[in-house]
Formats: sequence, C-alpha cells, structure tokens
Amino acid sequence: MQDARRYHALPSPFPMKRGGQLREACVAYETWGELNPQRDNAVLILTGLSPSAHAASQPQDDPTPGWWEGMLGPGKAIDTARWYVICVNSLGSDKGSTGPASPDPATGRPYRLGFPELSLEDVASAAHSLVQSLGIDRLACLIGCSMGGMSALAYMLLFPGTVDAHISVDTAPQAQPFAIAIRSLQREAIRLDPNWRDGQYSDEHYPETGMAMARKLGVITYRSAMEWNGRFARIRLDSEERDDQPFAREFRVESYLEHHAQRFVRRFDPASYLYLSRASDWFDVAEYGEGSVMQGLARIHLSRALVIGVSTDILFPLEQQQQIAEGLQAAGAEVEFVALDSPQGHDAFLVDIDNYSAAIGGFLGRLARTSSAG
Amino acid sequence: MQDARRYHALPSPFPMKRGGQLREACVAYETWGELNPQRDNAVLILTGLSPSAHAASQPQDDPTPGWWEGMLGPGKAIDTARWYVICVNSLGSDKGSTGPASPDPATGRPYRLGFPELSLEDVASAAHSLVQSLGIDRLACLIGCSMGGMSALAYMLLFPGTVDAHISVDTAPQAQPFAIAIRSLQREAIRLDPNWRDGQYSDEHYPETGMAMARKLGVITYRSAMEWNGRFARIRLDSEERDDQPFAREFRVESYLEHHAQRFVRRFDPASYLYLSRASDWFDVAEYGEGSVMQGLARIHLSRALVIGVSTDILFPLEQQQQIAEGLQAAGAEVEFVALDSPQGHDAFLVDIDNYSAAIGGFLGRLARTSSAG
Repeated sequence: MQDARRYHALPSPFPMKRGGQLREACVAYETWGELNPQRDNAVLILTGLSPSAHAASQPQDDPTPGWWEGMLGPGKAIDTARWYVICVNSLGSDKGSTGPASPDPATGRPYRLGFPELSLEDVASAAHSLVQSLGIDRLACLIGCSMGGMSALAYMLLFPGTVDAHISVDTAPQAQPFAIAIRSLQREAIRLDPNWRDGQYSDEHYPETGMAMARKLGVITYRSAMEWNGRFARIRLDSEERDDQPFAREFRVESYLEHHAQRFVRRFDPASYLYLSRASDWFDVAEYGEGSVMQGLARIHLSRALVIGVSTDILFPLEQQQQIAEGLQAAGAEVEFVALDSPQGHDAFLVDIDNYSAAIGGFLGRLARTSSAG
Repeated sequence: MQDARRYHALPSPFPMKRGGQLREACVAYETWGELNPQRDNAVLILTGLSPSAHAASQPQDDPTPGWWEGMLGPGKAIDTARWYVICVNSLGSDKGSTGPASPDPATGRPYRLGFPELSLEDVASAAHSLVQSLGIDRLACLIGCSMGGMSALAYMLLFPGTVDAHISVDTAPQAQPFAIAIRSLQREAIRLDPNWRDGQYSDEHYPETGMAMARKLGVITYRSAMEWNGRFARIRLDSEERDDQPFAREFRVESYLEHHAQRFVRRFDPASYLYLSRASDWFDVAEYGEGSVMQGLARIHLSRALVIGVSTDILFPLEQQQQIAEGLQAAGAEVEFVALDSPQGHDAFLVDIDNYSAAIGGFLGRLARTSSAG
C-alpha cells in the first residue's frame, strides 16, 4: 500500500505577499477521480486551519477515512466518478506542505519563527501553482471551507479567470473582531506556555498546555451552545473518570474538551498554528476593494456560486456568508445562498453531512449537467 | 471622609452547604436611603462574580462611582429616596467579605484552597443573615444580576416568604454546558499558570498571566460580536502602541482585551475567582424540583417579578431568562418579561443603562404605588 499524498515543488524562490521568499518549498496534495481530456472537470478543495490534504480515503493507496469522508467519493456529493478532485494542504501547514516546522534549506533546522510572514494569499498562490502544474487552466469549481473559504476568495482575487464556479462553506470575507479576539487568545495561550520559548520548543519541551488551551477554546467556538444543551446538558463525570485535583473536571462537557485537546496537541505544529491563525486574522477582501468588502467581491467573476452558512456559527456568522453571496451576485454570478440551521455551529460542515451533501451535491450536479463534464 | 462599607458578622460557626463551616466570618455591605418605620421598603442587590458592595457612590462617605452608578441613587431607577437599598459583597469574594483570601482564624494565614467548598446557596444564606440582622423580615424587592441572579434564586428557594418582588437580570436557573466550558477554561488558565502553585501564590509569585487569560475570555463572552463589529471593526493599533514581539497585538480589539485584563489582574483574588466561578457552574434550580427547572421555580412564591435578558448574551442566553419568567409565572407571580436587543451582550445591564433603567425603574415605580412604600 502506498501513501496517496503527492508533492508539488513550488517555483524557487517563491515570493511571499508580506515580504521574504521560500526556497525549495512544496505543497502536499491528493487527488481523486480522473482529469478528463478537456481538462475541465477539476474541483479544488482548500481546507480549514488544521486538516491535511487527505479529505477522503483512497481505496488503492490510503483507506484511512479523510476529514470530509462523507462528502467526497464515487456517488457522493463531490462525486469522484465525475470530477477530478484535488485537495491541497495549505502552505504553512505541517501536513506535508512547507511550513514553520519544515527545515530551512539555509540552515537545515526548522524555520519556526524564521518562516516568513504567511498570508492566505500565499496559501492561494501555492495552490494555484499546483493547479497549473497539473495542466489545468480553469477550475470547474473551487471549494473552500472555513479558513479555506478565505483562501479561495484570495485565489479568485489573485487569479481572475481561473475559476468557473465556487462553493463557499462556513467562511467570511474578512475576520471580524470577535473571531480576531478568539484567535488572539488562542495564540496567546501558546505563546505564554513556558515551553513555547519563542518558537524554540522541542519534543521534550513542548507547549502542550498552551496548545490544549488553544484547542479547547477552538472547540468551544467551533460548536454551538444549542448542540451542547442537548448533548451534554449538566451530565457529571462518573467518579472513576475524575481526578482528585482541586477544581478538576466534573462535567461531561469538560472531559469532551479535554479529549479533543489531547487528540490535537501533539498532532499540529504550534508555530504552524500561530502562522495560519494570524493569516486568518489578516485576510480581508476589502483590501481589494478600496476598503469595501462589496467592492472587493465585485472583482470576482464567476458563472455560478453556492454560498453555505449556518445560523449557529459564532466564529463565521451567517451575515458574513450572506455578504459573500450578495457580493458575488452583484458581480454577476448566479448565486445560491443556503442558510442552514444545523445545531453544530461552525463545524456543521464536518458533521451535518446530510444537509451539506444535499446543497453541495445538488449544486455540483446542476453544474455537471450544463458543462462538458456532465 | 469615611468608607461607606460596613460589615455583618455571620453566626459562628456558619455551616456551608457542601460541608465544612466558617468561623468568625462576615459579609461586607453598603446601604443607600432609609429603612421606613414599617421596614417594608428594603431592596437587596446580589451581584455578579466580581463586583463589590459599592453599587453606587455615597455622597457623604464615598463619592467614588459604583458599579451600577447610573441605576442607583435619588430619582434614579432604583430610587434611594424611596427605597432602602442594600448591596452585599458575595460570601467568598474578596471585597470585604470572608473568602479564600481571608485569614483562616485557625491558622492566621489565608484560607486559599483550605476554604470550604462554596455554593451560591452559601452566598444567599450569608446575604439573608445580613438582611435579618437589619431587622427586615421581608424584602420589598430582591434584585440579582448575572451570578447574583442565581444567588437570588437560591435565596428565594432557601428562605420562602422573605421576598415580595424580584428582579432577575441577565441570569440563568442553571449553568448550561457552553457557560460551564467557558468558566472551566478560565479556571484552567489560572490553574496552569506556574505561579498558581495550587493556591500558594504570593504577591511576588502571582498567577498574572492566568488571571489575564481568564479575564480576556470573560470579556469576550460578556460582550457581543455585534457590538464589536461597530466598535472595533478591523481597526489596527498605531505603531507606537505595538511592541515588536512575534505575534504581538495588532488590532484594536486585542489591546481592548489587554486593557481589561490589566485592570482586573491584581484586583481580584485568584482563589476567590475559582471558588465563585465553580459555584456558578454548580448552581441548579432543578435540584429543588426533582430534576426539573420548572418544578424548582414552582417553589418560589412572589407577588411580582421582572425578568430581563438580552438577545446578544451568549453566556446567559435569552431562553434561560424566558424559562425563569415562565417558571415564576406558573408559580403564581405576576411576571413582566423584558427581552432587550442591546448590542452589548451579557454586560448590557452595566452599559445600556437607558433600557435597563426604563424596565427596572418602571417596575419599581409600579411596586411603590401598590405598597406602603409608595
């Protein structure tokens, strides 16, 4: 069995938006399905902050379920029998793409804080370089989820004419102050961990408590109060699940957070987390529209778009999806706006597969019927 | 000039709900106005987690503005020309009342984690002891804000027949899992600070970063995303307001959080914070109703109640105020339910004085006209 992950070497040097450049950098990616001879059935997925390129299992090479397993595969909403699907690990991440945890070719040691400032525009440029290298001039559809939705907007702003249709999932045209405040606090939790050492942590001295705090705060804002009322209510832990530390965990919701934190802590590079988190704060469509989000969106020309959001999302509130929908429509696209009431909050796109499948599958199905891919 | 703060010595020993007892304990309080000869114009205010008993200035003794200055005074919504108003610092707090920072008479050293487990029922019992000591059998009105709203429910459950009318402000009949998760993370931030030392911190080794993190998370959940969109948007700090640390503050909302954290850090005892925070998680009206909040509320008998909440509150969501209103009404009270749309979130009761004044002043005015206090 082989790993399904492949690597695309970026042009070297690869210039970064905010200054500096990368040498010998790459992005990791996976693909599903076949590119048709016309090369017009390609779908690119840009991910949220932490996922890898492994969006779904690869029967031959990697049967491990992917982070969007329910959405992607033959006969599923993103039908790999029809589309050639590419998922790329964001530049700056640590799942195969070059990021702060990668060795700096100049020193042989991990970049850490020596990595140049990262923006979502750089993430988009790296993804675009990959798409070009696959011989694809124009994507049939660009899908972006969460942070990846912002990267997708950057992609369409930087590379006009390279995307036919777009699916925007639980994202925003810019970070609002509530989201900035949450992410700032997550970064602070990591930076205040004595093991952070300004990025000079090691496996032995690892900012575990900071990462756990950051992840818990993430999970709190990725889900919704409504979901938790039904799921956890005020259920207590059994006595054998408790420890006898003062102020130890007592409610089920507290052990749920701890469980999520421990699953994350050693599986995501702390510096990479900080870089991608800050890139999310920085991104702003308004920079492309003389200070106006709507004018920025007006520069994106698509045939069609599907914009999905969920009313329980506190990190990327529904009004921001509506703004994207209105902006793309004003720019000339035929836009479908789907406002879901899934109780799971921002993470609904990963959990409420039924409703997201219906919206995304329906949109891609209509797209296929009006294109040569149909 | 004298301090307006007075002290009420609690019966010694003072038994605590969850076990243990306090000796030589007291609660700090302030009063405004005059108790009438019938002793039926008393209004008691129970506070949120951090305020002192200094709800408003005292022209003679303490002209410093109080935490509810706009609400309380001659001619204001809580009209001290008409009502005898008492505000008590919660048992377990550090603003004059006995708490974990107070000396344990057995050792002469601060209790810290040797303080017995604290519940909001203990806070209510201490407040009731004070009210009795003032010669008041029955409060004309009991007002509780935020955590104090839960303490007020405890008061009415523990001491039936001692309250005529009630004003419930931005509170809940029990903590929901989202609120528990937030408070758990705040407590964890303090406990993980190396200077926490299981409560053996000192002025030199003080859990400053943990307290700052906890406060920032508090401020994020006390306000609302909507307010911040208007107030901070994506405004950057001026270059002279920035430091050159990696990942330093850059947006105005980040310096706002820092400012609030620094105003709080050395002004609230960390152990006291943990005790009151956990007491808020523990409180549950359903314990008085065989597992049902509505049955618990059914045990509270009032002539009238005003229940106020705000749609932007994510910590004590409006549905919980509605539940209180419905429960008190089902129990026989004449209930007014006021759902505000103030943008300030949970803290609206401290900020949107116009709307809260109108509701509270109107209610108390009608109360006065139908009682001997009128």
